[in-house]
Amino acid sequence: MRTSIATVSLSGSLTEKLTAAARAGFDGVEIFENDLLASPLAPEEIRARCADLGLTIDLYQPMRDVEAVPEDEFARNLRRARAKFALMNRLGADTVLVCSSVSPLARDDDALAAGQLSRLADLARDHGVRVAYEALAWGRHVSTYDHAWRIVEQAGHPALGTCLDSFHILSRSSDPKDLEGIADIPGEKIFFLQLADAPLLGMDVLQWSRHHRCFPGQGGFDVAGLLRHVLRAGYEGPLSLEVFNDVFRQADAGPTALDARRSLLVLQEQVGLGDLPAPVVPTGIAFAELVAPDAEPVSGLLGALGFTRTARHRGKPVELWERGEARVLVNTGPAARRDGACLAAVGLESPDPAGAARRAEALLSPVLPRRRAPEDAPLDAVAAPDGTELFLCATGRPELPDWRADFEDLPHTPPAPDPLRIDHLSLTQPWHHFDEAVLFHRAVLGLDAQESVDVADPYGLLRSRAVSTADGGVRFPLTVGAAPGDDTAHARHIALATDDVVAAARRFTEAGGRLLPIPANYHDDLAARYEFADGELDVYRELGILYDRDAHGVFRHCYTHTVGRVFFELVQRDGGYQGYGAANAPVRLAAQRTARYGAAR
Amino acid sequence: MRTSIATVSLSGSLTEKLTAAARAGFDGVEIFENDLLASPLAPEEIRARCADLGLTIDLYQPMRDVEAVPEDEFARNLRRARAKFALMNRLGADTVLVCSSVSPLARDDDALAAGQLSRLADLARDHGVRVAYEALAWGRHVSTYDHAWRIVEQAGHPALGTCLDSFHILSRSSDPKDLEGIADIPGEKIFFLQLADAPLLGMDVLQWSRHHRCFPGQGGFDVAGLLRHVLRAGYEGPLSLEVFNDVFRQADAGPTALDARRSLLVLQEQVGLGDLPAPVVPTGIAFAELVAPDAEPVSGLLGALGFTRTARHRGKPVELWERGEARVLVNTGPAARRDGACLAAVGLESPDPAGAARRAEALLSPVLPRRRAPEDAPLDAVAAPDGTELFLCATGRPELPDWRADFEDLPHTPPAPDPLRIDHLSLTQPWHHFDEAVLFHRAVLGLDAQESVDVADPYGLLRSRAVSTADGGVRFPLTVGAAPGDDTAHARHIALATDDVVAAARRFTEAGGRLLPIPANYHDDLAARYEFADGELDVYRELGILYDRDAHGVFRHCYTHTVGRVFFELVQRDGGYQGYGAANAPVRLAAQRTARYGAAR
Repeated sequence: MRTSIATVSLSGSLTEKLTAAARAGFDGVEIFENDLLASPLAPEEIRARCADLGLTIDLYQPMRDVEAVPEDEFARNLRRARAKFALMNRLGADTVLVCSSVSPLARDDDALAAGQLSRLADLARDHGVRVAYEALAWGRHVSTYDHAWRIVEQAGHPALGTCLDSFHILSRSSDPKDLEGIADIPGEKIFFLQLADAPLLGMDVLQWSRHHRCFPGQGGFDVAGLLRHVLRAGYEGPLSLEVFNDVFRQADAGPTALDARRSLLVLQEQVGLGDLPAPVVPTGIAFAELVAPDAEPVSGLLGALGFTRTARHRGKPVELWERGEARVLVNTGPAARRDGACLAAVGLESPDPAGAARRAEALLSPVLPRRRAPEDAPLDAVAAPDGTELFLCATGRPELPDWRADFEDLPHTPPAPDPLRIDHLSLTQPWHHFDEAVLFHRAVLGLDAQESVDVADPYGLLRSRAVSTADGGVRFPLTVGAAPGDDTAHARHIALATDDVVAAARRFTEAGGRLLPIPANYHDDLAARYEFADGELDVYRELGILYDRDAHGVFRHCYTHTVGRVFFELVQRDGGYQGYGAANAPVRLAAQRTARYGAAR
Repeated sequence: MRTSIATVSLSGSLTEKLTAAARAGFDGVEIFENDLLASPLAPEEIRARCADLGLTIDLYQPMRDVEAVPEDEFARNLRRARAKFALMNRLGADTVLVCSSVSPLARDDDALAAGQLSRLADLARDHGVRVAYEALAWGRHVSTYDHAWRIVEQAGHPALGTCLDSFHILSRSSDPKDLEGIADIPGEKIFFLQLADAPLLGMDVLQWSRHHRCFPGQGGFDVAGLLRHVLRAGYEGPLSLEVFNDVFRQADAGPTALDARRSLLVLQEQVGLGDLPAPVVPTGIAFAELVAPDAEPVSGLLGALGFTRTARHRGKPVELWERGEARVLVNTGPAARRDGACLAAVGLESPDPAGAARRAEALLSPVLPRRRAPEDAPLDAVAAPDGTELFLCATGRPELPDWRADFEDLPHTPPAPDPLRIDHLSLTQPWHHFDEAVLFHRAVLGLDAQESVDVADPYGLLRSRAVSTADGGVRFPLTVGAAPGDDTAHARHIALATDDVVAAARRFTEAGGRLLPIPANYHDDLAARYEFADGELDVYRELGILYDRDAHGVFRHCYTHTVGRVFFELVQRDGGYQGYGAANAPVRLAAQRTARYGAAR
């Protein structure tokens, strides 16, 4: 099906919006009136720009407070409509959105509404325009899709149909029964379909709609369920996104448009449309790659953690460090930035690297060159929205290219006992693109998303949401700072799983590593909350080990100091604990602030 | 009365919070448990720090899910309480907050709750601690203040009282009748009073409470009304602010603490406590002062606007430009910044400059030196929270110091006919301090605040709220950008009132001034909305004049180009129009973006 996006969903000038929509592969746009009014381009120029970009103008919107009003008011509305239809002719747009009235002048009189809409449709037809009448969830007298449809049906005018909007419908009721009436509307009378999701916020619906809409799959609505009803009705128009969102208004239009179209591709897959390659869920983490201007600080940390430098890339300044199943690449190549080491790439074990890359590409992820140099193994790799490179690996599978083949072994001492593996990689996100990242990891990699949690940093609330595979083989907690430019979310980290966090932490400190000191007050509180074996808590105090419980089990964890923009965590999961110690995050964040800026004593 | 603030209301480490609270003049603090847990200071050190700062620790908070639970659970709660009471002894805090339970284990059994709270109070008394039991608005079984009080009354324990919280009470009901029961609680059994305001958002009460509380006078609750009931009951404890607010979590603690205490000073005045000097409402704008690194660009603009340079400061590089009642000072002194001219100071005509300054000082506004140089007139002046200098003037009143006396006249041509006056000064605000600015202008200057409106800039939503005198003699629209660092709100402007905006705009362009071009699409829309006299709209198109109507009258306005960080607006108000053309702001903002960054064509 054709896809479209309302210009109000994107940031910037009208031409920036059009360019972004076209680049993301949309077929058309809805032009929001304020975007046109603020544009220095004449309607004919906008039409030409859209044509150049391969975009149709699928809707002009909105007209407000048109129907069920006193005759003198309606005469003024018709006068205005005449000008708007003439404008639409100049634009080359043939469908106009009319929202159900919120005017105090409007009467609760369906016959009056139908009669006036019919007269509006007469005028529209004379201009070659169709009127799509939509119930706003907060409409004065018409607030449900079936009520709007009854009025359209009563009017019985060929140039009058209805517009369905998933927000207005699903914000009023999530009961599937209430959607069944959709399939009774003749498909050709559904002139337009606007799609938006929203988090389930339980707030005033007008404010909810104006500030918190998001793309399908990013909120709590069953947009796919609604779409199935609309398709069953026989709707054949575009799938069009209309999203009012305070963050998208600020974010660069290009990434937002990609995010938007990705959401529609996933939605179409959910309802059996489109032909996306199937998801290939990764089975584990092959490696984490740090990019660093100087290998020394990172090497020191890895060494203290018991990692051994086992191999070196044959053609690039990249070293492989291993301890058990945990592998870390240290890359001192040109991508390094002077603010220090950062977690820039992840190797994912994939049952079908090429298939995974095909799905990523179909879902608009940049596919990275398969070879960096002629002698490199032809690895599949894609970029996540935040720029993190995701290498799709088949480690040790002889039939497939193996990243390990690019490395030559170095002489090395035997690794430390008690192997580690990567438990999770914490991928902090740029401020405006948090929901996009969650959708990407779900849709492209087939990960599951956990609930979003707020975490109090001393200087603001962070938002955190983990995505993971069902068995926990791949876990990425995604975190975003409290404000754009916030350096709280500056550092990412690598969490290493051990069966004995006390032993691992002790070995680390004995090897000269510095663990993040945790305030004694924290451990005093633990003593008040839980009962511990004799001496257990003393060890946690000494090493700065944090403690959490959930319904399944226990989590013990501690942190190294930060090098550049990366640090490590040692974690011990017992009894099937599923979380990431979010309850301890405020203490950890405050301790990192103290370590970084001084104790403020 | 003593004033206190919960540490959760301020940003930063615990010691930053304590320092800010003390500097703002609070007498005490409530220590929020997470702030203590995250602090590297031992409880004794916190106690000593507070003592050094002159702060008492009025409350430790909170204990949760204590009461009305099965006995084994309650035994664990008592164990935890024992540790917390010991901690409080180390801190020197004698009152603990116990919030009504939200635990699924809690039973709807007041006798059980009273019994367990009584046993908790026994333990508390042994430690010299008092328990203040508070109903959370979302408590599982206890969610109203009167229910919490009934349980306290039933327990009848001397170490058990109630804590009243204005948010929890007023978020459930704004009906004054529902507050009358407060006066029936014996004052000595109200162990604590927490005060917070909130905007009337109609959202999930837990989210509302955790993210959107604000200081009294910044929201929509009748906090003063509630306080009167509490005082009538005989409460003599501290007035304590407990505000969970996403913005305050990010903002610097120092200004937030000043804002907080100012709000309490105003609240006390509202209920007849305290002895603030009476407000002295300004009667008009004596001058606007631009600070500029180079007088030329501003002088050119002023000249084209028909201003004449009439005088020069006797001792400083400041020139006075006048046209009619509109006076602009151009200051090229050392305060100028290289990013160009900015609107840095305002002269307000005051019936009693010294009285106005005394009130400002009592409300924690920095009072500026009365004389900059020995020969200057001793002007009263204060700084607004955003740093804008407010000079309190008595122009032409021989009995008082006159700013004009510092200026010597320059030879000049007669001013242009058709005098102008300053209609309003648009004072854009730093991101984190918007509500603070509104409260400052209301409380310190006695201005009235209009409704807050959202304005769509191409790159985000702005928030705007005007403060003004009843007769419109002083009007300041306050605007804040969509995000910290947003340059949308970079420029301030001076709006000049004229009786004939067309003539004024034409004269400006004929004098070589450049008006902001407004897209033709905007005027096409005006033609569709309203009927105009023949040719009227053509003139608006030519000059870029915008048009708005409200219930009272008509507003016509246009904008000059921007110089540095300032621009001018010419406005014509007819028929008592009260607004600022907010409906046109998106078009103006987009046009300014186009003018600044190019047409993006």
